Amino acid sequence: MKPSAQRIALLGHGTVGAETARALTGRTQELAARIGAPVQLVGVAVRNRRELPGIDRRLVTTDASALVSRGDIDVVIELIGGVEPARSLTVAAMESGAAVVTANKALMARDGVDLHRTAEKHGVELSYEAAVAGAVPLLRPLRQSLAGDRVRRVTGIVNGTANFVLDRMTTSGGTFQGALREAQRLGYAEADPTADVSGADAAAKMAVLTRLAFDTELPVADVHCEGIAHIRPSDIQHARADRCVLKLVGICDRTAEGVCARVHPMLLPLDHPLASVRGAYNGILVEAEAAGELMFHGRGAGGAATSSAVLGDLVEVCRNRVNGTAGRGPAFSARLPVRPHAQVATSHVVSMLVEDRAGVLSRVSAVFARHGVSLGTVRQEGVETMAQLTVSTHPASDAALAAVFAELDGLSSVRGITRSIRRLEREKEPAR
Amino acid sequence: MKPSAQRIALLGHGTVGAETARALTGRTQELAARIGAPVQLVGVAVRNRRELPGIDRRLVTTDASALVSRGDIDVVIELIGGVEPARSLTVAAMESGAAVVTANKALMARDGVDLHRTAEKHGVELSYEAAVAGAVPLLRPLRQSLAGDRVRRVTGIVNGTANFVLDRMTTSGGTFQGALREAQRLGYAEADPTADVSGADAAAKMAVLTRLAFDTELPVADVHCEGIAHIRPSDIQHARADRCVLKLVGICDRTAEGVCARVHPMLLPLDHPLASVRGAYNGILVEAEAAGELMFHGRGAGGAATSSAVLGDLVEVCRNRVNGTAGRGPAFSARLPVRPHAQVATSHVVSMLVEDRAGVLSRVSAVFARHGVSLGTVRQEGVETMAQLTVSTHPASDAALAAVFAELDGLSSVRGITRSIRRLEREKEPAR
Repeated sequence: MKPSAQRIALLGHGTVGAETARALTGRTQELAARIGAPVQLVGVAVRNRRELPGIDRRLVTTDASALVSRGDIDVVIELIGGVEPARSLTVAAMESGAAVVTANKALMARDGVDLHRTAEKHGVELSYEAAVAGAVPLLRPLRQSLAGDRVRRVTGIVNGTANFVLDRMTTSGGTFQGALREAQRLGYAEADPTADVSGADAAAKMAVLTRLAFDTELPVADVHCEGIAHIRPSDIQHARADRCVLKLVGICDRTAEGVCARVHPMLLPLDHPLASVRGAYNGILVEAEAAGELMFHGRGAGGAATSSAVLGDLVEVCRNRVNGTAGRGPAFSARLPVRPHAQVATSHVVSMLVEDRAGVLSRVSAVFARHGVSLGTVRQEGVETMAQLTVSTHPASDAALAAVFAELDGLSSVRGITRSIRRLEREKEPAR
Repeated sequence: MKPSAQRIALLGHGTVGAETARALTGRTQELAARIGAPVQLVGVAVRNRRELPGIDRRLVTTDASALVSRGDIDVVIELIGGVEPARSLTVAAMESGAAVVTANKALMARDGVDLHRTAEKHGVELSYEAAVAGAVPLLRPLRQSLAGDRVRRVTGIVNGTANFVLDRMTTSGGTFQGALREAQRLGYAEADPTADVSGADAAAKMAVLTRLAFDTELPVADVHCEGIAHIRPSDIQHARADRCVLKLVGICDRTAEGVCARVHPMLLPLDHPLASVRGAYNGILVEAEAAGELMFHGRGAGGAATSSAVLGDLVEVCRNRVNGTAGRGPAFSARLPVRPHAQVATSHVVSMLVEDRAGVLSRVSAVFARHGVSLGTVRQEGVETMAQLTVSTHPASDAALAAVFAELDGLSSVRGITRSIRRLEREKEPAR
């Protein structure tokens, strides 16, 4: 017998929603062939009623809750964004027996674990490949391809706006504000860029990645987060002098002490795979015990790219429904302890203005040594009667650094710490 | 009720088999948590009976066909390689109701379509992520993540041995034979490297990729294949002079005329994403209509890396069996026409030895023009009374080039065509 059509409801008709709707109405045969049944767009919910190109006006509604609760919907595609009303609508959809495909990282970061439980309870699927790194297949590889391996660490450039801004500052030598305005002009940054430049968006994505990489629950509040708004052109220049590039990097890893996720600006050596991630692209490096280093690179945002991931999820979810199977969600079998960021040891490059006379360097290095922070390279450049002293440390905790800075402040010969930026020290993979 | 254990049979105990067996016996809890049921290794088939470390001798057998036909096996992991007996054992396993996970690209390239039909017929899964690009998640992203998109082209470095050899020639300036010997010494090349250096291994992988990328059947015999054994140090030097690197590249694409897959050495501009794929690594660039360019990079071979992909497939296949669902194989819904390689237009860099006198260049370029091959750059270097003339062509078919060469041979002023190498012209992505 011929399988019945998969009935799709679309919530939101912004850039991603419009691209998704166009595919659903324009590429029906292709999608049907891959799903094994036709797809039918049965409703589109928008905030304010309006004409939608190529969509029968009778399908357009402003009552999203009525749409998701109809009970005859197979899959709800949630592209509203933000936590509410997206969360309530997602729950209502699942309670009505619909699977949900979403690109909503804020929602999945905050309520992902609960939403997975709700999905499990109602025997429906919840898919969100588009929520992290847009078109780049990442969540499925983590959950499925690496399901037989042990992920050690995920290091990612997962916010295209921040990467564009820092990349622009690097190529143009300009200021943060100037680069941000250009990002806005080109549509890479929103009118309110707070979530992107504060690191909050990247932190949400890292929370989602951490859960899937390590099968564990992780509150987004436990993701340590620093933004890029304070980055100055001089920081970029110093990075170049250190043969590094400055990126907003998200890292999650698992050690004996537990899992830890953080987002902060970081110096990457030029030969690091992520150093070459340009413009608004995303790049993610996954390190697994058996697989070694896996690199993923592609468009992290944009209507078309994000809709590609949404439609990929949709096809799989529909295919599973046609086969009468709801794919199983992540187990979150472990609930691993969260290692506080204060315990994470990172290398730093620290610059300070010191008096240019004998003995200063020894006094300064003694302070680092006293707090167990050992130094790598030391560079000193005269600035009239003062000197710019730049030291790179071996991995040290924020706490130890803070103690060092406090004591340095007390030294009369140190006029001020001008910058302190983390630097990624890449462990070489064991040769196989 | 507690789901019953998944019973696993392992065929082959080489480097990949040993790594896989170690995980199956050593990481049982972890795998059970991800599958939702325990896994149990119930048999290991080897050619010659011997002690296998960490495996109960009673599980070891030399009778593979008896093992796969027992009827109480959930998943057979085929790691024998080659077409027979792997093919018969795979079929027998599926006929007995077992799912099959294999890393066997030769088998999947030759009989993949039939084997998928057999799997469909018996309602079991057939998974082979490890067959292409080892640990790099590629087949699942192509089949699932991009299921809602349209793949245009896949360009890949999918043979680590050939890439290591060419990379070595590039860094050392040495000969093909010398680089190959080093690859063998380091275990990157087998005693008989024919399949790797002839391009046959890469062609098999491209046949598999083409089918999954375009949902179509493609006989491996239709993959045009050129190897690297003829590459000389001078080719590498010329590549550097052209600001390119020489790689063994596999390409499959879909145009209005149909699908086409080919494997050959190719000059890649240094800024091409695949140009930086070093040593024995694999890199694959997927171009899709909506997603844009997606890059995947990682270990293409090695026991541990390959076992990571095998175990990823195993976990998913077992998970599906526990949920009482056999995941659906690829549809191969379309049977697209195969575009013959002779019709494929590629840019070439052609070097020839010509007499160093006026009028030669015009005569030579006239020949190219006569056969509709337009020229890009032209470089001429004096060699005593002769000159080395190097021209880069705009995309032209092999047939057109052959006609050009035939006519050039007839010119008294042309003393010989010293080399002709394809060059990848990268279309810039439309900015989004």
